[in-house]
Amino acid sequence: MTALPPHVAIREVGPRDGLQGERSLSVDERVSLIDALAATGVSDIEAVAFVSPRVVPAMASAADVMAAVPHRPGVRYWALVPNVRGAEMALAAGVDGLSVTASASEQYSGKNVGLSIDQSIVELGRIAAITEGKVPVDAVVSCAFGSPFEGSIPPGSVAAIARRLLDAGATTVTLADTIGMASPRSIDALIGETGTDVGLHLHDTRGTALVNAYAALQRGVTHFDCSVGGLGGSPFAPGAGGNLATEDLVHLLDDLGVTTGIKLSLVLVAGRQFANLIGHAVPSRVAQALVDRALV
Amino acid sequence: MTALPPHVAIREVGPRDGLQGERSLSVDERVSLIDALAATGVSDIEAVAFVSPRVVPAMASAADVMAAVPHRPGVRYWALVPNVRGAEMALAAGVDGLSVTASASEQYSGKNVGLSIDQSIVELGRIAAITEGKVPVDAVVSCAFGSPFEGSIPPGSVAAIARRLLDAGATTVTLADTIGMASPRSIDALIGETGTDVGLHLHDTRGTALVNAYAALQRGVTHFDCSVGGLGGSPFAPGAGGNLATEDLVHLLDDLGVTTGIKLSLVLVAGRQFANLIGHAVPSRVAQALVDRALV
Repeated sequence: MTALPPHVAIREVGPRDGLQGERSLSVDERVSLIDALAATGVSDIEAVAFVSPRVVPAMASAADVMAAVPHRPGVRYWALVPNVRGAEMALAAGVDGLSVTASASEQYSGKNVGLSIDQSIVELGRIAAITEGKVPVDAVVSCAFGSPFEGSIPPGSVAAIARRLLDAGATTVTLADTIGMASPRSIDALIGETGTDVGLHLHDTRGTALVNAYAALQRGVTHFDCSVGGLGGSPFAPGAGGNLATEDLVHLLDDLGVTTGIKLSLVLVAGRQFANLIGHAVPSRVAQALVDRALV
Repeated sequence: MTALPPHVAIREVGPRDGLQGERSLSVDERVSLIDALAATGVSDIEAVAFVSPRVVPAMASAADVMAAVPHRPGVRYWALVPNVRGAEMALAAGVDGLSVTASASEQYSGKNVGLSIDQSIVELGRIAAITEGKVPVDAVVSCAFGSPFEGSIPPGSVAAIARRLLDAGATTVTLADTIGMASPRSIDALIGETGTDVGLHLHDTRGTALVNAYAALQRGVTHFDCSVGGLGGSPFAPGAGGNLATEDLVHLLDDLGVTTGIKLSLVLVAGRQFANLIGHAVPSRVAQALVDRALV
């Protein structure tokens, strides 16, 4: 087998990407879910988004969630922010990291954050400036493997946007497969352009999230966004599909001997809490197989 | 990327494994489904099983199905048989290949075919003898990656059973992951013992069928059982989960430039016919993503 990295860092995006398309939960409910995830051993949680509550009602009251959530040692609590205003609110709320929306797709960028690609890079620069280097700024490049509007996007163009985001002040870049168009081949092509020092944010629209993560892992990528239960998907991308499930990736990595610091059984417990509160089962097959068979 | 084989041979098991746990369809319905699959370009179809209609009602009338199904040139029509009596009926019905049930798990073997592992190897020898070399005999080793009853089974033991089956007269061996316990690591370990000249029959219980197929492909395996729509799963294995979906594997292989001779759009068409007749959607995510979005 190809030599694999010994450790993978997972950023849990269930409370943000996972919940953004679900019915709105109370602040207390969201806090309890975030804390259940913090108990799993994960190092990074995208806990909230500072976006318009009119556009994404489920993400309202982000500051209240951040104020109420217990800050466990060793866990960084991230916020997604689309602009300087969101970043200011996030910093005031005491977040440990900012995920800033960027895009490889002009049309998606316009629909998602109302900015052109160029404008969003400028906006990221402003956001990075106001952090004064106190918290990391991760630029999340949506549609990095294709757009629901423009189709495929050349890897060279995506890599150029990633470089410009780093030049503008991003600490790191995450390549997001917003509608699950990536494949082992396209991951290989894009990582070949960007290098392996990027995060991947994969969606399971075509059931390929796990095989794509495995291909990226073999290529040397060690940072992945995952969502508990495989919940998630952009309300602004037709047919987005859920995220790569935390359970599915941890299950695979445990078997491969790649450490994550995350205890799978506790992710399954958190997944059940999410399912109970949102009122439907989570899509993760690992969750279904292991919880249904009472193996946890 | 690891060099991949240029071509993969798929045996479509939807009419057998895919339908065995569904409500019984008429002979005409089953014939129409088999022929829809034959139109996809697939070379091998497991069309029927000669088993007790009392135990597996959906597989009744196998001879009638074989008599009515159009025999397309270039397509081999296989039957699953558990014993000599089934093999005799299958040969009389004019099948082109026999899949013979074997097992790496004593307990599963007993529950599935009422034979010990040793007895099933003897039975396979008898079946191979009556074919007089006129049709291939594929020994399908269930629970090759673990048993719902005994847990994990050492790769060396599974490989030894595979060798004994070949010695007893099997033309080929297929390793079946009956309840979806395989992983890239365990596939690597077992293929290391058996060599790559085996087929793989994967189940998606834990959402790992595709990543396992990819790992096996990287290892050099070129023969896979798939089921249209990801239908299937043994009625005798608790929590078996559906098969690796034909759509999912062909979608991946198309992207990787590995030929199969199968036209994905026609598999999606066949999958819709299956869904219509069995009365529920198929689990394949590729089918859901592409059919729902009217991309076919």
